[in-house]
Parts: sequence; structure tokens; C-alpha cells
Amino acid sequence: MEKIVVNQYKRPRLNNPVLIGGLPGIGNVGKIAAEYLIEKMKMEKLVDIFSQYFPPQVFIGEDGVVHLVRNSIYYKKIPKGKNDLLVLVGDFQGSTQEGQYELSYKILEFAQKLNVSALYTLGGYSTGKIVETPRVLGAVTGVEFVNLLEYYGVVFPKGEPGGGIVGSAGVILGMAMELFNIRGACLMGETSGYFADPKGAKELVKVLSLLLDVNVDIKELEERSKQIEQITEKMQEDVQGKNQPKDDLGYFG
Amino acid sequence: MEKIVVNQYKRPRLNNPVLIGGLPGIGNVGKIAAEYLIEKMKMEKLVDIFSQYFPPQVFIGEDGVVHLVRNSIYYKKIPKGKNDLLVLVGDFQGSTQEGQYELSYKILEFAQKLNVSALYTLGGYSTGKIVETPRVLGAVTGVEFVNLLEYYGVVFPKGEPGGGIVGSAGVILGMAMELFNIRGACLMGETSGYFADPKGAKELVKVLSLLLDVNVDIKELEERSKQIEQITEKMQEDVQGKNQPKDDLGYFG
Amino acid sequence: MEKIVVNQYKRPRLNNPVLIGGLPGIGNVGKIAAEYLIEKMKMEKLVDIFSQYFPPQVFIGEDGVVHLVRNSIYYKKIPKGKNDLLVLVGDFQGSTQEGQYELSYKILEFAQKLNVSALYTLGGYSTGKIVETPRVLGAVTGVEFVNLLEYYGVVFPKGEPGGGIVGSAGVILGMAMELFNIRGACLMGETSGYFADPKGAKELVKVLSLLLDVNVDIKELEERSKQIEQITEKMQEDVQGKNQPKDDLGYFG
Amino acid sequence: MEKIVVNQYKRPRLNNPVLIGGLPGIGNVGKIAAEYLIEKMKMEKLVDIFSQYFPPQVFIGEDGVVHLVRNSIYYKKIPKGKNDLLVLVGDFQGSTQEGQYELSYKILEFAQKLNVSALYTLGGYSTGKIVETPRVLGAVTGVEFVNLLEYYGVVFPKGEPGGGIVGSAGVILGMAMELFNIRGACLMGETSGYFADPKGAKELVKVLSLLLDVNVDIKELEERSKQIEQITEKMQEDVQGKNQPKDDLGYFG
Repeated sequence: MEKIVVNQYKRPRLNNPVLIGGLPGIGNVGKIAAEYLIEKMKMEKLVDIFSQYFPPQVFIGEDGVVHLVRNSIYYKKIPKGKNDLLVLVGDFQGSTQEGQYELSYKILEFAQKLNVSALYTLGGYSTGKIVETPRVLGAVTGVEFVNLLEYYGVVFPKGEPGGGIVGSAGVILGMAMELFNIRGACLMGETSGYFADPKGAKELVKVLSLLLDVNVDIKELEERSKQIEQITEKMQEDVQGKNQPKDDLGYFG
Repeated sequence: MEKIVVNQYKRPRLNNPVLIGGLPGIGNVGKIAAEYLIEKMKMEKLVDIFSQYFPPQVFIGEDGVVHLVRNSIYYKKIPKGKNDLLVLVGDFQGSTQEGQYELSYKILEFAQKLNVSALYTLGGYSTGKIVETPRVLGAVTGVEFVNLLEYYGVVFPKGEPGGGIVGSAGVILGMAMELFNIRGACLMGETSGYFADPKGAKELVKVLSLLLDVNVDIKELEERSKQIEQITEKMQEDVQGKNQPKDDLGYFG
Repeated sequence: MEKIVVNQYKRPRLNNPVLIGGLPGIGNVGKIAAEYLIEKMKMEKLVDIFSQYFPPQVFIGEDGVVHLVRNSIYYKKIPKGKNDLLVLVGDFQGSTQEGQYELSYKILEFAQKLNVSALYTLGGYSTGKIVETPRVLGAVTGVEFVNLLEYYGVVFPKGEPGGGIVGSAGVILGMAMELFNIRGACLMGETSGYFADPKGAKELVKVLSLLLDVNVDIKELEERSKQIEQITEKMQEDVQGKNQPKDDLGYFG
Repeated sequence: MEKIVVNQYKRPRLNNPVLIGGLPGIGNVGKIAAEYLIEKMKMEKLVDIFSQYFPPQVFIGEDGVVHLVRNSIYYKKIPKGKNDLLVLVGDFQGSTQEGQYELSYKILEFAQKLNVSALYTLGGYSTGKIVETPRVLGAVTGVEFVNLLEYYGVVFPKGEPGGGIVGSAGVILGMAMELFNIRGACLMGETSGYFADPKGAKELVKVLSLLLDVNVDIKELEERSKQIEQITEKMQEDVQGKNQPKDDLGYFG
């Protein structure tokens, strides 16, 4: 078999599309943000990507129907001459080193064919503790992006985010720059990293809606963020009441 | 070498064959059921599949002759215009992620060439404790299979089997659906998962004989199930008598 | 690069050659026997096999010159119309599952080109304790070999060697039988498995010299066996004297 | 994608170039020496090598710009008919066994195309303790190099460096010799191996400048060596003062 199989369902004509990549990762911040965009903007599925670089498994839906694990790209035509939108989401990142590179390359080949004009990969930046108001940190393919992104609230701290970005958010961006001449940035929402975190995702969506000049209602992400806050506050009280070490909070993402 | 080598021994003309897949897995339930069908229905070997995706080893038979590890497909022509039968069995599943996908794909290519009309992969569903009367749980390629299978006693519990099927029983089914347009289901016999379990296998064989409209004498599986029951009851008594922890039951599958 | 690179140095005309395989393994019994044959019979190197399936390293000789790790095949023309001889030795077996299959296949392709008439792979059979007089156990590609080998002292115990042969001694034999129609046997010298063991190797050489009808002086292997016996006896005395657990003997092979 | 992608930026005509390889390794001695040569000799970048054999990650620079991990080769034309110079450096060695071989092979193919006349791979030799005056140990593709290198102070101790060289410094040299007929040596600077060690690197640079007949100012490496000495002396005092075990020195390379 082909190591990566792309099933394309539509052939839309897209206007200078921007590609957003939101695969699972730290706190699932990027994935939550990307799926939120797809849902709120009623995006349509363009391709499914199946691959032996994903774990060999299916999920079973509520109706008993199996879902072979995959990555998918959705699209949305945006009126008034603005950039059209492509969003990459999926069940997994490539689960080997080779898989990370091959999948990123295949996605970029596809992006190039569609004349993608800019690329934003989304990720989480793990702070290791609960963050009240998560920042969005940035890394770019060239200094010309720094001012633009700072204008929309993205932070470029000296020395952070600690030297590197591991996984698809980094590799897609790095290969775009070196091998495809596609430019862009990685946007990382701060998160404790302990659980699937809508708060960091909410900040990513806010930055993206400014950057792409589209309107996205973030009410639902705000509600989910509040729920998570209440749960973690409750847990911290419990923990302090029982005098347990704080990192007993554990991992439930 | 080819990563997968298929040695085909026969060229039968088959009538809308149904493919049953029963490779080693949880409680070896699927494998026991598949091997039982082959033996009781006196099926003939169609192909051997050798591959570098299997562990590099041979088994030695009672006569001292080595057996290179493999998967095999057996066939049986069924009279009266019913569907002919293909059964996949083997010593191992592919032992890498790539191997799981490549072997599943190769088997499905072969199935497609033989015009396979439906696919049933067999597996075990681990309950983690001894089950008196194991159910057969189902997962399907489309909702049109649910009623048919429920009619033959297959259960589609909400929320079970816990989200996913890992390994060949899942991947073969998922790839059949997405890449080969072959339809079917995964049938999972409940099992403690602690040992090779003929009880779950017996339930699978009962469902299959109804589903395929063939007669399979299950007496031998009933006897093996009784033997296992006696052994596990004895062990539980010993365990309780001696006040040992219950999970001393151990793994001897 | 090619995954396996074969450098062939000679093009001798060989008469129905027999291939002996002695790569590193349990107690290095097969390797010691094979290297002993090469030295005592003054065999010449036919090919070097380099491969990315071996660990990425070089050894450094006494003269400071590096030796890239490899497998090699040596040959010897035997007079009086007897079978000529090929012996496979090396620094490592393939260090991945894929490597085990690919290297075995490449060696068998080469064997087939040279019209190899029979194959004997050598290995160790681990007894887990010191053996006074190691037996040579056998496994074969067909029952027709059993009588022949028993005649030369090879033992075919029921139920032993415990179900299987893992690694190149098994895979080369199994693939020879299924994919190349080359026939033969695996000969396993008993060994504690705790250290590189010339005693098991000596028994292998004795069987091989009968089987191939060649004269091999085994004096040197006898001396090395005696040295090892003295060392292990000394260690056992020390251990018993000091009341230490016997498995403190450890692994120094 | 190609498993290894070579982006070549220049096409200089080189005169019998010598290739120096200094990738990360024990004490990073080879890498520090190679990067020092590049900086002090103002070498220019010839190629970048990207590969799925490297970890899937980017580094982030002070300016926020991402750097996809890579190996690179720099060059310098040396006047007066001397050998021109090529230096290989990088963020990582290949991180799989296959990667080690494939990357080494690709680099040697490139070296062959440029008519490389000799090869020196650099590495560290771990002594496991602080060394006052590190020696440079050698391993060669042929005895004809021993006298030459001993003349420049390289040591060929009997029995050392302990049998083998693991990783790219060994594999590049071994493959150069066996598959490309390129000759040379591996030069290993002694180091504790506990941290990135400029002292061993300094000794490598001294030998190389003699060997290549080029002038390299080693003042800066001397200063960095002194700083490291002061730090480790301070740590040893602290350790002894506090009666802590000596290996608390730890790993901070």
C-alpha cells in the first residue's frame, strides 16, 4: 500500500487559502481550536488522510460504526476577496519519526498544489501549572511576521518557548520554510498540559479570528473554559484540604 | 525480498465468498473460532502469507520439522448457491504498526480479487473477569448491518466496547470500508482475557453459523469450555481458600 | 544506499556446495563452530556483506585499523567429488525483525545462485545450567533428514527444543524450505548460555565433520573446553564456599 | 519525500578537498572542534541536509525564527595548492540505525562527487573522569596512516579505545574504506564525557591544524577550557567539602 493514502472528496477553487494545522498535542490546545473553527464556521471536508504512520486501530461511534483513524483537511470559502480557509485536524500525529516527516511533507505538497499563501500551525505550550490568563506564544519562518503577530497579541518572549517545538506543529512549519517556500508561524497557547484545555484554545481562536479577519463566536469555548476552571479549582481545594502535594492533580487529558 | 510473500496453492472459482478473519488476539477468541471452523468444515488451504512483519522465528513440530511463522487463508465451497467461505488464520498479527497496515491491505487486495462480498473479523472483548455467559459484541461498517446482527444475537452496547478496536480485527475492517468498499463487521466474544478462551469462541461460532447459514457442530468447543470452567473454578476456590489475591489467577493464554 | 551491500571477491566453480550458517547467538556456539571450521580448513573469503541492518559501528584492531561490522561467507573446494563447503559467519545477526528476514533472504538468493545442495544452520540450545556432555539437537526441513542426522548422533527429543528457534538459524532454514526449495537442518549444541561456550561448539564440529565427510582436528576446541570447565568449576566452588546464590555465576559471554 | 534532502547552495571548484566530520557525540568534542574551525576559518555553507532520520523538531532562535534540524557541510578554499577544506556539522546524528548508515552513505556519495582525497572524522573518547591533558586517540583505514598521525601527536594505544567506535564517526569512516575507497582516520579527543568539553576539542583542533597545514587561532578554545576547568574544580571542592559522592557531578552537556 501507499504509506499515506489521500482520499479527496471535493475540488473547490480556492482564493489564496491560509492553512491552519491543529493536530493533537500538549493539552490538545491546537486540536480543540482547529475543531472549534471547523464547527463554528461550518467548514466542509476536503480530504481524508489514512496512513500506516497512525496507530493500527479504529474508533467505534455511538451508532456502532467504525472510524479508521485519520487526519482530515476541511475548507471554507470566505467572501469579499479574503483568504479562503483550510484547517487540518486529526486523531493522531504520525507516531514515528519517519511518519512525522512523511505526513508533514504530504500535507505540504497538497498545500502547495492549492497555492496556500500562509501557514499557521497551532500547539500548546506547557507551563506545568494552571494558568489564569494564557498567553499565545509565537515562532515564525521569518522576522517579517513578528510585528504583525505582536500587533494581534502574540508574544515572542526571549528564551521561551524553551528552545524548540517537537512534533508536527514544528516540522510542518520548518519544512514549509526550507523545502516549500511557504511562510507562516506556529502559535502556541499556554496550558498546564495536565488535561485537554479549552482556555488556551480560546486564546488561539481569538488571535486567529483577528489574523484571518473572520468572525468566530467564542461563547462556547468560554463556557467550556469556565467549567474546566471550576473543576480544577474544586480539585485544588480538595487537594489543599487534604494536604496532598499539588501535583497529585494528575493527568486526565 | 518482498515485504509480504503470498504463496497461492489453489485457484478455485468462488461464489460471492465471505471472508472471516481470526488472528491471535485478546483471549485468542477469534483465532480459536476461526481454526475451529477450518477443522469442522474441512476447509482447504488457499494461500500461505510469509512476511518480515512477523517475528523472525520458526516453530518445531512433534516430528522435528520446522514451520516458518505465517498467516494462511483457507476456503470452502458451500453448495446450494450460498456464499462460499474464506477463513484467515495465523501464528501472529503483524508485529509493527506498518506491518498491521501492510498485511491488512495485502489481505484485502486478495479479497477484492476474489470478489469477497462481506467481511467479518473476529476478536475478543476483554472484561477483565470470568464471564458466565459471554456476549458477542459488534462494530460495523454501516448502520445497515446493525439490525441483521442484532437478529442473530450480536449486542451493540452504547459506549462499549470502550471506544476502539486495536490491531488487525479493527484495521482490516476499517480499511475494507474506506479503501476497498468491502462491507462487514467485527464480532467480539467476551472473555476474561486471562487465557486462551474457548467459551467466547463458541459464541462467535454460533453467531457465524447462523449468519452464514452453515451447520457447525459445536460439541467440541462446549467440552473445551467446560474443561476451562472447571479449571478456573478450581483455581478460584484455591485462591479464596488460601486467601490469595484474586489476580494470582495469572495469564496462561 | 542498498539496504544490503554484497562485495564478492572470488568467482570459484563449486561442486554442489553445502552451506553452513554460524552467526552469533546463544552461547555463541554456532559462531565458534563456524569460525573453527574456517580456520582449521583454511577456507577463503568469498563475500563480505555490509548492511544497515547491523549496528552502526566499527571495531578497532590491534593495529589501529577499523573493521566495519559485517557478515562474511568463506568457501573451500573439497577434493574427490565431495560437496564443496560454504560457511557463513559474522559480527552480528540482523538487529531488527526486518533485518533478520532481509539478510536471510539475501544469503539464500546467493546460495541459490551457487546451487547450494544442502543447508545446515548452527545454534545453541540454552539449558540454563552447566552441561557435562552437551548433546546436539536437531530440527529439519523434512522428516527424511531425521534418520540421517540421528545416525550421526543428533537428538530429536519430543517437545524440545521448546517449540521454536528465534533468529537467523531458524529464519534462514524456514525461508530456505518455503521460498527457495533448499533443504537442510538446524543443529543446536547444548550450552548453559552463560558464556561463549566451546564445548557445545566442539560437538557441532564433530557432527559436521561426519556429515560432510571431512577431517577436522578438534584438539584446540577440546583444550578451550577444558579451560572453560576449570574456570566454571572454580567459580562454582567459590560460590558454594561463600554460600552465594548459584546464579551469581552471571553472564560473561 | 526523499528520506534525505540535500539543498546545495554553491558550486565551488575544490582542489583535492579533505573532509572533516564533527557531529554531536561524546562530550560533543567533535562538534565543538568542527564548529570552531568553521567560525575561525570563516568557512561558507555548501549544503544543508534535512532528513526524516533526524528528530521531528525545530529549534527557535533569539529572533523567534524556527530552524529545522539538519546537518550542514561548509567549505573553504585554501591557497598555495594546499588541500581545500570541507567540514560536516549538525544538530544531530541520524537517530536510527538505518539513519546512521543512510546519512553516512549520502555524505560519502557527495564527498566522492567532490573528489575528497582524505577523511577525518572527529569524536570524543570517554574516560569517565576529568582529564588534565586530554590525548587524541586514533583509528585508521590502513596502517599507512599510523606513522603520519603519530608524528602529529595522535596516540594509538594497544587495546584502546576499547574495541569500537559507535555512531557516525565510525560508520562514515568504515563505509568510506569498504564502499568508497576513501581513506582516512577517526580522531578522538579524550573527555570525561560528563559535559560539552572544549578541552578535548582544543586538542583535536591542534592536531588538525598540523595535519592540514592551516593556521587556526586556538585562544578562544583555551579560554573556554579554563572556564570549564574552574567550574569543575569548584564543583569537586563543593562535592568533597560536603562529602557527597563524586558522581553527583552529573551530566550537564
